[in-house]
Amino acid sequence: MTKEELLAKYKEWELKTSAYKMALAIIGIDKQTVAPEGGAPYRDKRTAVLAGELFSLQMDPENIEVLRELMKMDLDGDTAKAVKMNYDEIMKTVAVPKDEFVAYQNLTNEAYGAWLDAKNRSDYAAFEPYLEKLIEGTRKMYEYRDSDLSLYDRMLDDYEPGMTQEKYDVFFDRLKERIVPLIRRVTEAQKIDTSFLHRNYPVEEQKKFMDELLQYLRFDPYWGYLNETEHPFTSGTCENDCRTTTKYLPDNVASAILSTVHEVGHATYGHQTAPEYDGTILAEAISMGMHESQSRLCENYLGRSKPFWEANYPRLQKHFPEQLGDVSLDAFVAAINAAEPSLIRTEADELTYPLHILVRYEIEKGLFNGTISTKGLDQTWNEMYAKYLGVTVPDARSGILQDVHWAGGSFGYFPTYALGSAFSAQFMHAMRKDLDVDECLRNGQYDVLMGWLKEHIHKYGARYNADEVMRLATGEPFNPDYYLDYLEDKYTKLYNL
Amino acid sequence: MTKEELLAKYKEWELKTSAYKMALAIIGIDKQTVAPEGGAPYRDKRTAVLAGELFSLQMDPENIEVLRELMKMDLDGDTAKAVKMNYDEIMKTVAVPKDEFVAYQNLTNEAYGAWLDAKNRSDYAAFEPYLEKLIEGTRKMYEYRDSDLSLYDRMLDDYEPGMTQEKYDVFFDRLKERIVPLIRRVTEAQKIDTSFLHRNYPVEEQKKFMDELLQYLRFDPYWGYLNETEHPFTSGTCENDCRTTTKYLPDNVASAILSTVHEVGHATYGHQTAPEYDGTILAEAISMGMHESQSRLCENYLGRSKPFWEANYPRLQKHFPEQLGDVSLDAFVAAINAAEPSLIRTEADELTYPLHILVRYEIEKGLFNGTISTKGLDQTWNEMYAKYLGVTVPDARSGILQDVHWAGGSFGYFPTYALGSAFSAQFMHAMRKDLDVDECLRNGQYDVLMGWLKEHIHKYGARYNADEVMRLATGEPFNPDYYLDYLEDKYTKLYNL
Repeated sequence: MTKEELLAKYKEWELKTSAYKMALAIIGIDKQTVAPEGGAPYRDKRTAVLAGELFSLQMDPENIEVLRELMKMDLDGDTAKAVKMNYDEIMKTVAVPKDEFVAYQNLTNEAYGAWLDAKNRSDYAAFEPYLEKLIEGTRKMYEYRDSDLSLYDRMLDDYEPGMTQEKYDVFFDRLKERIVPLIRRVTEAQKIDTSFLHRNYPVEEQKKFMDELLQYLRFDPYWGYLNETEHPFTSGTCENDCRTTTKYLPDNVASAILSTVHEVGHATYGHQTAPEYDGTILAEAISMGMHESQSRLCENYLGRSKPFWEANYPRLQKHFPEQLGDVSLDAFVAAINAAEPSLIRTEADELTYPLHILVRYEIEKGLFNGTISTKGLDQTWNEMYAKYLGVTVPDARSGILQDVHWAGGSFGYFPTYALGSAFSAQFMHAMRKDLDVDECLRNGQYDVLMGWLKEHIHKYGARYNADEVMRLATGEPFNPDYYLDYLEDKYTKLYNL
Repeated sequence: MTKEELLAKYKEWELKTSAYKMALAIIGIDKQTVAPEGGAPYRDKRTAVLAGELFSLQMDPENIEVLRELMKMDLDGDTAKAVKMNYDEIMKTVAVPKDEFVAYQNLTNEAYGAWLDAKNRSDYAAFEPYLEKLIEGTRKMYEYRDSDLSLYDRMLDDYEPGMTQEKYDVFFDRLKERIVPLIRRVTEAQKIDTSFLHRNYPVEEQKKFMDELLQYLRFDPYWGYLNETEHPFTSGTCENDCRTTTKYLPDNVASAILSTVHEVGHATYGHQTAPEYDGTILAEAISMGMHESQSRLCENYLGRSKPFWEANYPRLQKHFPEQLGDVSLDAFVAAINAAEPSLIRTEADELTYPLHILVRYEIEKGLFNGTISTKGLDQTWNEMYAKYLGVTVPDARSGILQDVHWAGGSFGYFPTYALGSAFSAQFMHAMRKDLDVDECLRNGQYDVLMGWLKEHIHKYGARYNADEVMRLATGEPFNPDYYLDYLEDKYTKLYNL
């Protein structure tokens, strides 16, 4: 075949692939937002059929041959990268028999339902058999792969290409070294009053404020939609279809707000990726850590800053005059930045957050290296929380069952969250060299900040790898010291240490 | 192949088919409720790819051979019926080339966007080229079919198997004969006050009442979900996944309520079909008229009745004390039943409704028989509304652009609405023989009424045809006199004629 014929075949395959991916994305969003629970078994069974169809399409030997031929040819940079990425992705699973792949999809769908149910009843024992099957199933999937990496390293590499247990161990050790003593000092310092955040904040009123906040964040209904869900996530199908979700808590005014600033950060990344990458693998996430760096940057570096609230706090007070009328801007900003070891990862403060990840990282390592078992894992979890965070876990709902990830078969994903926080510190440092970030936040010029992220990070999509984007945007390789310096500086000042 | 092998092949095909149908249903619901508009071109293009995949699957010669073989065998009644129905469906389109089928899907997707836009701007000229292309495309699709029926009869038969222009002409003539003079008498009688229905009814408060009404209607979140849309519809994927939609108007308290009672009627039909039919063609609509008969029965015979409001009116008054505190139950019930020629089909009263359908029926007939053109069709529309309903259409938004159907390529669908109203009168007559309907409504026993519909109609799904179900449920063939008698009796009393 000529290059043109090969490219035509490839484009046809790419379009078909993107159609199945779109269907699965929409079915997934639907499932986690509005779909009636009773229909889940019916839908899950058929979703697995569609995933199986996509799998067959991806593993089609004829297409693999097309990719192999194209890799030998002189292609433009974007196409060359996309072809190579598709090929590498396919090689990861090409050895998995289709029926096992479909069975694994079925398992994760069932396990999601079981997890939701077990979480509602705070019953780890009910979920444990599923977790065991998930680990066994995931192990089998990864064993089919032709790779020199250890089993858990293969998982880590899927979410953050290039990262290994060895590298993560170094990162987490360095983090422990500087952050654990800092947390001890903060815990011993005078507490910051956060009680007013937990007054009664009717959800309906929270939604009205959210409508205004979304405008400040430039989350435009033309390309985005905010829905509600149990466990907030962001998904979508293309540049102009980025969906995100939130969860309102009547006794916590900050939760939905900061979670939304975070998720809109993800959505904005998707929206600002070069539109010509739509439908190609280049529009997919470059790495989980890199994507998370953008949501964390928005949540922590922008959304928790004083200038952000100089613009937004008067609006919030207007919606909640009884609850916040007597609370000063400084007191509010201090409260949403207060650090205190706690139970729920998604509600954790910036300082203690990485320790929540550390617990999950160590458990995952143990589960796949055979040193930890699912039996009594809720107890192991509770012991680690006592050891690292000094907190007592009262039940599985606020313990091991709090996160959806494992129920979906996502192992090796959690560590990228801590990495993302560290990436964002370095990006923020670079952005501050170019822009007066505080002035932009005060003046409601959130679009200027998002514009900087677009130019230096988002537009590339997955065209370059994480390391390359880091160098392009900041002029140097990843350096976790920006993150550790930032945390030390911020919390030393906040707590007058 | 043995019977068992053939059945296994058939079941595999049936499951795969149902997976694509589910994906397309969910993508469709998503599109019409929450999906960001900006992503529509991307999604539409890929939706057409998926529809094309389904098409290939349905037209697969190997499967057609399996169906042919199975039809020669001794199968259980359900399977025999499903195999025959699938075969007949496939024969309708087997001659359509796949690329033309996909192009037609693309066209209807594009046309939907163009219609929405044209309707917003009330600009028929902007939609006219799409309508022309839709008619040309639809004509082409139907010309491929091997059938003795005329082109428009083929369309009519698709929505209501067995119905033809000849039969519809008889039905509409009989209807005109008795209803047109009745409308004249009503128009000359003293008007019923409906002004209070159009006071200011904040949407948020309407939603609170709706939550309570959904409980009365036994619309259970376990199997159902109500969302908002521009043009209310009902869809779903299985027994326990029935979605419906509504549209709130701040200046019309009855609109969203009655539209929801109507749509929940459709959803209940889906929910009450025998669960063992899930995923098979037997769970699909038996005919549009039959489905519509159930939604109309709920809307008009139950939802507009005095006993229904004896149970629900005090609740509605509680939500709108300022707007309805001075309005008696009788005045309210009279108002929601008042008849007056008007512009919008979906807002039309029960009496004038069939004339809205008559206009569309005559236009469709003309478009496909070549006596009417799309050029200046808005004027033709307006003239017919003046002639049949005596009203002046001020703009295309409240005229020819009001309905979504043609934009989706649905021609031959409208007449089933009038037929559905007529069917429901006959069903209602039979139900009243078995149950004290009024007492059930008063006591909030809506489930008892739905139970009757389940036993006599819903559970069968498409297992029997419309004529057979009519005989099973009422003991006699369809007789439009029940409908005409009902309208005459109701409106003679309401207007003291």
